[in-house]
Amino acid sequence: MALRWGIASSGLIANDFVTALKGLPKEEHQVVAVAARSSSSAEKFAKTHNIPTFHEGYANLAKDPNVQVVYIGVLNPQHHEVAILMLENGKHVLCEKPFTLNEKLARQVIEVARRKKLFIMEAIWSRFFPSYQEARRLIKAGEIGDVKYASVAFGVKIDKVERVTNKDLCGSATLDIGVYILQFQQFVFQGLQPEKIAVAGHLDEHGVDDAVSAIFVYPDNKTAVVSCNTTVDLPNEAVIVGSKGTIKLPTFWSPLTLTLNSKVKEFPLIPNEGKFNYYNSAGLAYQAIEVRKCILEGKLESDVVPHAETIQLAAWMDKLRHEVGMKLPPPFEDN
Amino acid sequence: MALRWGIASSGLIANDFVTALKGLPKEEHQVVAVAARSSSSAEKFAKTHNIPTFHEGYANLAKDPNVQVVYIGVLNPQHHEVAILMLENGKHVLCEKPFTLNEKLARQVIEVARRKKLFIMEAIWSRFFPSYQEARRLIKAGEIGDVKYASVAFGVKIDKVERVTNKDLCGSATLDIGVYILQFQQFVFQGLQPEKIAVAGHLDEHGVDDAVSAIFVYPDNKTAVVSCNTTVDLPNEAVIVGSKGTIKLPTFWSPLTLTLNSKVKEFPLIPNEGKFNYYNSAGLAYQAIEVRKCILEGKLESDVVPHAETIQLAAWMDKLRHEVGMKLPPPFEDN
Repeated sequence: MALRWGIASSGLIANDFVTALKGLPKEEHQVVAVAARSSSSAEKFAKTHNIPTFHEGYANLAKDPNVQVVYIGVLNPQHHEVAILMLENGKHVLCEKPFTLNEKLARQVIEVARRKKLFIMEAIWSRFFPSYQEARRLIKAGEIGDVKYASVAFGVKIDKVERVTNKDLCGSATLDIGVYILQFQQFVFQGLQPEKIAVAGHLDEHGVDDAVSAIFVYPDNKTAVVSCNTTVDLPNEAVIVGSKGTIKLPTFWSPLTLTLNSKVKEFPLIPNEGKFNYYNSAGLAYQAIEVRKCILEGKLESDVVPHAETIQLAAWMDKLRHEVGMKLPPPFEDN
Repeated sequence: MALRWGIASSGLIANDFVTALKGLPKEEHQVVAVAARSSSSAEKFAKTHNIPTFHEGYANLAKDPNVQVVYIGVLNPQHHEVAILMLENGKHVLCEKPFTLNEKLARQVIEVARRKKLFIMEAIWSRFFPSYQEARRLIKAGEIGDVKYASVAFGVKIDKVERVTNKDLCGSATLDIGVYILQFQQFVFQGLQPEKIAVAGHLDEHGVDDAVSAIFVYPDNKTAVVSCNTTVDLPNEAVIVGSKGTIKLPTFWSPLTLTLNSKVKEFPLIPNEGKFNYYNSAGLAYQAIEVRKCILEGKLESDVVPHAETIQLAAWMDKLRHEVGMKLPPPFEDN
């Protein structure tokens, strides 16, 4: 039975998500509608992707009776309001990261989903890559012993991208790419609460954070060291070190290989001839598989990106931003 | 003209230093005496290495008129007193890292050297590897553009080594291996003063630091992220990222290769058939070449490891230890 997707946004990431879905069986995933702020954008996107219905504005998408689940790819400051709109109209939701701009809004959105008994998940697509699933399996099986250390740096030169640097759009290295490094160390030390978080970073001339690093110290001498940077390209390899061995994930946000000690395992992408805007976007499909599975099973949250972890991520992003002095424009700094 | 070395200590690192010197021309470096606390240890060491003179106790070495420069490889808590003893007796000094246990002692030792107009250098041997010199050249030539980010982690499982974990011996991850990661980022951002240092770490059951990480934020959005850990083996690769490229140094404390972007350059060790206790110890000879050069030129400090950087390293080690709550036994915590 095909899950019937509605797409909120006609932007670059929405294009990639819809294109990624084409790599999955048609009898399992179907895009039935798209909405954008302007009718012309929605129409153009619908034509490009052969989507039967387009809507002007998200409210019309929310009322489309044919849509079961909405993928939210709008700009960061609109995530929470579009998510709540969809939930209040009975739609399940897959919401791009960062889920919301702060912890308070994340809790509000999740509260609506619980009340409405609908599925919602933050689109932490990295988690669903087979390489991450293999890392999880190796850790659980004790293949690298007791995990003591994780490190990851995510640096990409995107300091000319308005989404990232415009303060009015809530631009922020922490919100844009910091969420990836935080979810990574959360993935490694799943369920643990840090005893201390030390943070340092830098604000650009507009007061937007463009480089942030953090040290998480967990119980039993487990440490995570994470950095994000929007001004420079970093190696972007994640490392997980245990008492008995090491796992490395190159291009850690969408890794197609995993190195266990010195042995490389390959996990090729879902074949897809589509045109993508971002690196390895065909892998956006993995999270769609999880969404369908959860909805078919009647689950309201995923075990891989549970609500508690989404709230934790939002809280950590608040902490990192605040420690480096990065303030969001009103009304988003009230948490 | 051979520089006439005296060796203070008959321990593992002293063995490696003397063995490393054998890789250099005899007409340039000659070991003329060794001293240890016990006469038998000194005698055994002298026999092993064909050293003409041995002394019981360091005071006798200090008075040996044939010795020009003393290599100090004693335990960390004795560095400052043995260094001062040698200086007061007119000997130049190469002192193992950490130079002293805290900044106050480092300043005291250097003050004596200045008063006596003698050469003294902290044995930051890594700095003299040809790969480090090449990294310096590449950075200065602008080959990787404006340097924005450096990271390094040094983790080796040495938590069963008494020197490292015995509080009475001033065991400390920061003092034992943290000095390496600190000197590395100091090397990269030479001369800059950090605007902020954020620290987090862990103490073992005896109150000895066994894992410490730090974030250094420098002016103009330059960041260094460094970690040390004595409980687990980490990848130990150092990375220097600029606006135009990346330098990597594997086994960063004694690297035989340097990767500029994806191009690997090799820097083989000085050939040496001797038996060493530690990895790549033949490279201890590089710093001896610098010591000889400086002394022949009448210099009182090296440009590669100047006094100011040794004092800075000591101050940073104090800061890191204090931030994680690691207190040295009396009387070393008075700074």
